[in-house]
Amino acid sequence: MHPVDFDDVRAAAARIEGIVAHTPVLTSIALDTLAGRRLFFKCENLQHVGAFKFRGASNAVALLGSEARTGVCTHSSGNHAQALALAAKQHGIPAYIVMPDNAPQVKVNGVRSHGAEITFCEPTLSARESTAAALIERTGATFIHPYDNPRVIAGQGTAALELIAEEGPFEAIITPVGGGGLLSGTCISTRALLPDSRIFGAEPTGADDAARSLAAGELIPQTDPNTICDGLLTSLSNLTFGIINDHVERIFTVTDEEVLAAMTLLRNHLDIVVEPSGATVLAAVLTDEFRALSDIDSVGLIISGGNIDPASLPPNSM
Amino acid sequence: MHPVDFDDVRAAAARIEGIVAHTPVLTSIALDTLAGRRLFFKCENLQHVGAFKFRGASNAVALLGSEARTGVCTHSSGNHAQALALAAKQHGIPAYIVMPDNAPQVKVNGVRSHGAEITFCEPTLSARESTAAALIERTGATFIHPYDNPRVIAGQGTAALELIAEEGPFEAIITPVGGGGLLSGTCISTRALLPDSRIFGAEPTGADDAARSLAAGELIPQTDPNTICDGLLTSLSNLTFGIINDHVERIFTVTDEEVLAAMTLLRNHLDIVVEPSGATVLAAVLTDEFRALSDIDSVGLIISGGNIDPASLPPNSM
Repeated sequence: MHPVDFDDVRAAAARIEGIVAHTPVLTSIALDTLAGRRLFFKCENLQHVGAFKFRGASNAVALLGSEARTGVCTHSSGNHAQALALAAKQHGIPAYIVMPDNAPQVKVNGVRSHGAEITFCEPTLSARESTAAALIERTGATFIHPYDNPRVIAGQGTAALELIAEEGPFEAIITPVGGGGLLSGTCISTRALLPDSRIFGAEPTGADDAARSLAAGELIPQTDPNTICDGLLTSLSNLTFGIINDHVERIFTVTDEEVLAAMTLLRNHLDIVVEPSGATVLAAVLTDEFRALSDIDSVGLIISGGNIDPASLPPNSM
Repeated sequence: MHPVDFDDVRAAAARIEGIVAHTPVLTSIALDTLAGRRLFFKCENLQHVGAFKFRGASNAVALLGSEARTGVCTHSSGNHAQALALAAKQHGIPAYIVMPDNAPQVKVNGVRSHGAEITFCEPTLSARESTAAALIERTGATFIHPYDNPRVIAGQGTAALELIAEEGPFEAIITPVGGGGLLSGTCISTRALLPDSRIFGAEPTGADDAARSLAAGELIPQTDPNTICDGLLTSLSNLTFGIINDHVERIFTVTDEEVLAAMTLLRNHLDIVVEPSGATVLAAVLTDEFRALSDIDSVGLIISGGNIDPASLPPNSM
């Protein structure tokens, strides 16, 4: 029994109704033709702060109760930091964000624009954790982990809930996987609503800890990631690995070149800007391995975000 | 009395329900701050074929009746051609498209992908008209004008209908204006649903026939247009000028530099790809002239399309 179930997702959906955007589901005949099946893209790049992360952060902040007054804290290189900053601002509470000093400028600017207090640290997990611990000691803020948190996972599960309610059923659903919060939430919603649907993850070959963990049946942390998918560098947690191991059939790995090609396809055929992490799902369904899967007529794909740091991409790739 | 009224728009909305996309309305706190008021962007760049034109084309083709069998014909440099080609394909009838031989490649490819028969001609109005006339003589196809057609205008009016129903009321609404089909349809829906709302157009300074016509109180055709807004080069027709002259308070003109800046803002803050013509509306609300308007708390903006021809833009502008 996992510490988050579908009732939590449904409660989260009601709690954040009208606060998070009900993002559109886009389709393209040209992309269907390329993939050899019907594709339904849930566009969380069009979510507030440009990423699904606002769902989980909004749910977690809304559930704080009397702890809320002293604010919230997290360490994040990116979208979760922006999401928590905005959710805190909406509740009128302080947000203390620890960011690595190599975080994309576009994401630093986003956090700052929502009025959060940013503390920079070295780009290592231990520096991030110790800096956050010191901030919490000083301020009394509540730590909101980007994915190792049942309330955050329940919030992320609302994206698949909306996608399935609006366009389902699908024979398969696929999301990017970094820390595993989105994929875990998607597992919970999909198993409840579409018990027979196949659930997949998409991950860059340069940060394939989830694929290796799932294959090994045990959590293998990511060391030394090397990919343009700056949202997918982190390792799974015990919580997210447990959920993913129970429900996910396979993690597809894609190269950075495949990701760049998918970004261009999404731009040309859906007129949307998608960050590398978000384009992994299209890259995955275009692989020979995915094409070889039979009995899948339609696939739901969750595009996780759209906050591109131009400096992180190869020249002339956009 | 105009030959198209709100009953026609409502009937069009029912007729094309489930065929055209119910496009999302996006918002951004950052863009609201820049504009000094709340902005609601109706994203027709996320429409099928990447433009609002699919609304009018779908309505016109659905109304053909016994004329349908011999197909449809139009001359268009761009989005209307793609839209008519797709609508015809969906009805299983032929589409004959006359395109100027300098039409953007991305738009030629779009038309071709929907199975239409393309005939190229010189990029003059007389060449387009004579080539289309010869095709119609040969095939018996029905000519569907991109904007000088009440059924097309009624279809275009469904975008504002959805926008107002979903996010209204607004104190003002603004659309790009080229031939005037979108703006005319928007006038009809807005006057019926929000009688007190102010209605504006946005136009490039290099193709400002609508602004000059409205100021003069008579139709002044566009000669020698010079702008990156390739969807807004055409002149108003008597039909669209009549509607616009009755309902539109003012046409704001914007420079190509302002349009490029607006495209970047839309990309960074809404994660959407917008063609130059579609970005005119954001450029317009950011002008000093628009800022000076009082008593406008919220504005509905229709983003007309997203089909960018990279070759038509200055280097490094994307």
